[in-house]
Amino acid sequence: MDAITPVFDAEFRAQFHELLRWRRDVRRFRTESVPREMLDELLSLAALAPSVGLSQPWRFVLVESPAGRAAIRDNFAAANAEALTGQAPGKSALYARLKLAGLDAAPVQFALFCEHDPAQGHGLGRRTMPQTLAYSAVMAVHTMWLAARVVGLGLGWVSILDPVAAKSALDVPEDWDFIGYFCLGWPEAEELVPELEREGWEKRRSLEVLRR
Amino acid sequence: MDAITPVFDAEFRAQFHELLRWRRDVRRFRTESVPREMLDELLSLAALAPSVGLSQPWRFVLVESPAGRAAIRDNFAAANAEALTGQAPGKSALYARLKLAGLDAAPVQFALFCEHDPAQGHGLGRRTMPQTLAYSAVMAVHTMWLAARVVGLGLGWVSILDPVAAKSALDVPEDWDFIGYFCLGWPEAEELVPELEREGWEKRRSLEVLRR
Repeated sequence: MDAITPVFDAEFRAQFHELLRWRRDVRRFRTESVPREMLDELLSLAALAPSVGLSQPWRFVLVESPAGRAAIRDNFAAANAEALTGQAPGKSALYARLKLAGLDAAPVQFALFCEHDPAQGHGLGRRTMPQTLAYSAVMAVHTMWLAARVVGLGLGWVSILDPVAAKSALDVPEDWDFIGYFCLGWPEAEELVPELEREGWEKRRSLEVLRR
Repeated sequence: MDAITPVFDAEFRAQFHELLRWRRDVRRFRTESVPREMLDELLSLAALAPSVGLSQPWRFVLVESPAGRAAIRDNFAAANAEALTGQAPGKSALYARLKLAGLDAAPVQFALFCEHDPAQGHGLGRRTMPQTLAYSAVMAVHTMWLAARVVGLGLGWVSILDPVAAKSALDVPEDWDFIGYFCLGWPEAEELVPELEREGWEKRRSLEVLRR
């Protein structure tokens, strides 16, 4: 194992900023498949993410079967229909038009769970805030998200799902908590501006900081 | 704004993997200060993180006053003492020795909150899983964590805190939820292996994937 401390120069730094600026939540995919070794590499990079007490509580479930994908698609359709009823009329059309999921086109789809109380980590650091386990799983998928963009792949987070039904459909251990469902594939287009901003749904704001 | 789609070559990819491998949870800091413009850049990069419905619910609070820092230090001491009583005797000494916080040395310290139900985003995507707001805030600080390592800064997440007391001590709006407290500064040493692994607390495992 190479243990020479890396130095990240100005060029890397500039490109890393470009990576952050060009990472998108992707919902429109081309149909070409993702090579198995590429997916395996992304998953192994995800395991480098920080985790509370080194607990590595993330659990990835690749959803490959037609039955599994149909269950998630039905779940999304029901949850999305309910979400639409909560929207003011003016926003509804736009909201529907945003095509909130790449569930029909994405060649790779996976669910992310978090083990509720893993033995690994021996409980360190999570006594007062057990939600740091879920936060660790989120950092794993965020790592994968950035690594995917580096190789030209796009990832989309499908959050409009009933988590209880999603867990039930995927037949996972009882002590796994559902974090999210993800679509991965080759994006139809690379975009600098988020789709929600391009569609006029919302604008990004700069960050304000309080001081105490 | 430069809108030429970036291409990330093999060299960038290799260095990006080094970045992921060398990102550490840092608890031992040198005392030199962090230039203001460097901190400002990290915070502006954090705002590029993904967020549900483009809600950007992250709220950063720089803790600079002696009173604010003392309140957090006391909170940590109490929560850590309680955590120690839950450990088997054999582990307790190691647990205490790990020096779980850089609270005395880190020149920059900040708390991260998540606005509970922000107007921004118009509720999109979070109806069935409102915890995606907190997950968005976590991805913002994870973005900052990686960006910090690029410029040689280390970040440490202090999770052994009572979140209710931490929020109360920092006098923030009632509808902000406490996510975590962070130390930022120049690390005493750069390490490839996590401190918890070097100390024999826990080993990292490779990732296993279920298929459904």
